[in-house]
Amino acid sequence: MRTYDIIRKKRDGHKLTQEEITELVRGYVDGSVPDYQMSAFCMAVFLKGMDEEETYWLTEVMRTSGDIIDLKGIEGFTIDKHSTGGVGDKTSLVLGPVLACLGLKVAKMSGRGLGHTGGTIDKLEAIKGFSTELTSEQFVKAVNKVGLAIVGQTGNLVPADKKMYALRDVTATVDSIPLIAASIMSKKLAVCNKGLVLDVKVGSGAFMKTVEDARKLASLMVKIGAQAGRKVAAVLTNMDEPLGEMVGNACEIIEAIDTLHYKGPESFTNLIKELCSEALMLENPKLTKEEAVNKVIEVLKNGKAFEKLVEMVESQGGDSSMIKDYSKLPHSAKTVELKSDKDGYISQIQCEEVGLSAMMLGAGRETKEDKIDMGVGLKLVKHVGDQVKVGDVIAELYINPERKDNEKAMERLRAAITIVPEKVVARKLILDIVRS
Amino acid sequence: MRTYDIIRKKRDGHKLTQEEITELVRGYVDGSVPDYQMSAFCMAVFLKGMDEEETYWLTEVMRTSGDIIDLKGIEGFTIDKHSTGGVGDKTSLVLGPVLACLGLKVAKMSGRGLGHTGGTIDKLEAIKGFSTELTSEQFVKAVNKVGLAIVGQTGNLVPADKKMYALRDVTATVDSIPLIAASIMSKKLAVCNKGLVLDVKVGSGAFMKTVEDARKLASLMVKIGAQAGRKVAAVLTNMDEPLGEMVGNACEIIEAIDTLHYKGPESFTNLIKELCSEALMLENPKLTKEEAVNKVIEVLKNGKAFEKLVEMVESQGGDSSMIKDYSKLPHSAKTVELKSDKDGYISQIQCEEVGLSAMMLGAGRETKEDKIDMGVGLKLVKHVGDQVKVGDVIAELYINPERKDNEKAMERLRAAITIVPEKVVARKLILDIVRS
Repeated sequence: MRTYDIIRKKRDGHKLTQEEITELVRGYVDGSVPDYQMSAFCMAVFLKGMDEEETYWLTEVMRTSGDIIDLKGIEGFTIDKHSTGGVGDKTSLVLGPVLACLGLKVAKMSGRGLGHTGGTIDKLEAIKGFSTELTSEQFVKAVNKVGLAIVGQTGNLVPADKKMYALRDVTATVDSIPLIAASIMSKKLAVCNKGLVLDVKVGSGAFMKTVEDARKLASLMVKIGAQAGRKVAAVLTNMDEPLGEMVGNACEIIEAIDTLHYKGPESFTNLIKELCSEALMLENPKLTKEEAVNKVIEVLKNGKAFEKLVEMVESQGGDSSMIKDYSKLPHSAKTVELKSDKDGYISQIQCEEVGLSAMMLGAGRETKEDKIDMGVGLKLVKHVGDQVKVGDVIAELYINPERKDNEKAMERLRAAITIVPEKVVARKLILDIVRS
Repeated sequence: MRTYDIIRKKRDGHKLTQEEITELVRGYVDGSVPDYQMSAFCMAVFLKGMDEEETYWLTEVMRTSGDIIDLKGIEGFTIDKHSTGGVGDKTSLVLGPVLACLGLKVAKMSGRGLGHTGGTIDKLEAIKGFSTELTSEQFVKAVNKVGLAIVGQTGNLVPADKKMYALRDVTATVDSIPLIAASIMSKKLAVCNKGLVLDVKVGSGAFMKTVEDARKLASLMVKIGAQAGRKVAAVLTNMDEPLGEMVGNACEIIEAIDTLHYKGPESFTNLIKELCSEALMLENPKLTKEEAVNKVIEVLKNGKAFEKLVEMVESQGGDSSMIKDYSKLPHSAKTVELKSDKDGYISQIQCEEVGLSAMMLGAGRETKEDKIDMGVGLKLVKHVGDQVKVGDVIAELYINPERKDNEKAMERLRAAITIVPEKVVARKLILDIVRS
C-alpha cells in the first residue's frame, strides 16, 4: 500500500492493519517515507485516534526498530519504572534500592539528555568515583549480586521514537494518547524487564490534563504491556505541584537519602510506597496491597533500603562516604529566600516553571554542551493548600552568585506559585491505580 | 506567533487570524516553514475546517505570493472561466468567442502542463502559425481589438499554490473544500478580471462527489470572489460522463467549431449556454436568464461566434483556413471501433479513465518532455442512459498505429464504461447555479 493511501485511510477514520503501520514506520526510519508524510499521518492520528490493536502494532514496530536489551543473564524478577514527565528524577534513586532489597532485580538504564535538572545519571556522577559506564557483563554481574545497578543508556534504542518524537514536537502532535503510549511503551519494552510500574502524571503541567485522559493512557499502556507478555501497573499521580521539596541535583540526592531513611517529605514517601508496593504485587500477585506497603515501610524504617544504595554506590566504584555525610556532596555558595508578597493560600505550583527556574540557576542543561552545576537548586518550603502571609519564606534558592540569571530565576519561581485569597484544599497525590 | 502554535490552534478547531495565516503561508513560500509543518497544518485544516473569513485570508496571501496580472490596459468587462477538473478543455475555445462577440473581454491565460490531453494552448498550436506567446502589449492590444486573446501563462503566478498543491497531493490533503477554494481562487484572482464563471464538476470522478459538497465549494468561491470585489457565478455540472463526445486535441477543436456553428453535442452546447449566460448576467445584472441565453443562441446560430474565433486565430497569426476546413487539421492514421460486449444500458463513463485512455493513445503528456500527438483521440458514441446491444459501437478511437499502447488504451476505455441490465436515466447536466 502506498504511504498516501495509509495517510488517507487514517484521515478518514479507518483502522489500519498491522502491515500498514509496520510499513509506514519502517519506511520512516529508513528514510523512504519523508517527514512531511509522517507529520500529516501523525496529525491524522491525533485527530482520528487509533484503537488498542493499532497502538500495540505501532509500539511493536517502533520497539523493534533498534537494539533490544534482553537482560538474559539476570536471574529473578526484573522490574522497571517510568514517569510521564514531572520535574526532578529522584524516584529511581529511592525505588531502586527499596525493590532491590525486597528481592526484585532493578537493571536501570537511564538517559542523560536535556532537562530542567540533570538526569539520574548526572546526579549519581556527583558521587566521586561512581561509574555509570559498565560493560554489559559488568552490568549483569552487578544486578545479579546487588539487585540493582544504574547505568547510562547506550546503543541504538528505538530510533523510530527518536525520529518520530522530534517530528511530533514541532508539528503539534505530541499530546495524542495512542502516540504517547506507543512512544513510552516502545522504549520500555525494548528493554526486556518482566515488570513495569508507570507513574502517570495528571495536571495542568503534565501531558494528561485530566484524570480521565490519564486513565485512558494508563489503561492503554497496561494493555500493551500485557499483550507483550509483561506485567504492568500504573499509578495516576497529581502534578499540581512538584513532587517533594527539592529541585536540583545534589539537593535531590539528599532528599532521596532522607526518604530512604524514612525521613523524607510525606508526599514523595507516599509515592514511593505506592509505586514499590505495586511492583511487589506484580512479582507476587498473592500479596495484598497492605502487605506490600508494609514491606516497603519496613525496609525504609530498618535502614536496609539505604544500605542497598550504599551497596550499589560501592559496587559501581563510588565513594559511599559522600552519601553517608551530605556535607561531602557539592553544595551552593549561597542560599537566598523567596518570600511571599501577599497573604492567602497556595493553589498551584507550576512544575514546568519551577523546573525552568532551577535550570536558570544552573541545575540543568539547555544545550548538550552546557555543564550542570551540581550544587545549585531550590527547595519549595510551602505547598499547595498552605496558608502564607506577606514575608513568609515560600522557597529557598541555592545559588551560585557568579551566574547571571539568578534574579530572573527567582522571579520565574515567584510567578510559578499561585496564591489566592480563598482557602485551598490540596488534591490527594494518588488519584487512581490501573492494573491489568 | 510560532508555526507550532498556529498548527496547534487549527488542530484544536480554533479560528486563525489573518496575521497567522499570512505568516504561515509567507514562511512556507520563503522556506522558513518546512514541508512537515505545512503538511501537518493542511491535515488539521482538512479535519477541522476553515471558515469563510479564514479561507479568504488564505486565498489572499496565496494570491499575492507571486506576480499579479492587473489587465489594466483592457477596456470593458473582463471575464474568465474556470472548471474544477474534467476531461478535455474545449470549453474555452467556444466560451471565449461567444462572450467576445457579445461585448465582453476575454483575456485568457492558459497553462500547458500535464494532463490527459493537451491544454487549450497545445490545442491552438495545432493551427499553423498560431502564436500563444504575445508580449503584454500585444496581448492587451489583441483583447482590446478582437475582444479575445488566448496566450500561454508566463511569469510566477501564485507560487504558494504550486508548492502547497504539490505537498497536499502526497499527503492526502487535497479534497478539503477550503483548501480547494483557496487554491482555485488564488490563481483566478491573481489575474484581475472583473467577472468569473466557475464550472464546478460533481460526481464520482470529480473533487466533489456530492451536489451538497459542490454547492459548499461553489458558494465559498463565490463569496471569496465577492469579498475581493469580483463578480462570480458558479454552475454545478454533472460529471457522470465526459463532456461532449470528443477527447483529444484536433478532434476537440473540431467539436468546439461544430458547437460554435450550433451543431455540437447537445450537452456541451447546453453547458456553453449556461456558462455564457451567467457571464452576461454578471456584466449586466438587469438581463434575465432567458434573455441572456437567447443572446448566446443567437451568436451561435448566426455564425458570429465562429467568426470571432476566426478573427482571434488571425489576430494571433494563425492560418484560419485550418478551422474553416477540418481536413487541414492533424488527423490520425486509423480509426478503430470499440464495440459493446454485452446488452444493457450505460450507467457511467468514468472521466478520469477515459482521459487516461486518451493519454495512452498519445493525446496527452505523462512527463514534461512528452510530445503530444495532435491527431489521436477518441469519440464517445454512446452516452449515459443509452441502450446498447452486443456489437454496437460505443466509441471510436483515432489511433497512430505505430504507438505501442493502443490495445491497452482500448481495454482501459472499455473498463471505464459501465453497462448495467436495468434501464438508466441520465442525470441532468446542470445541477445548480450559485450566484453572489
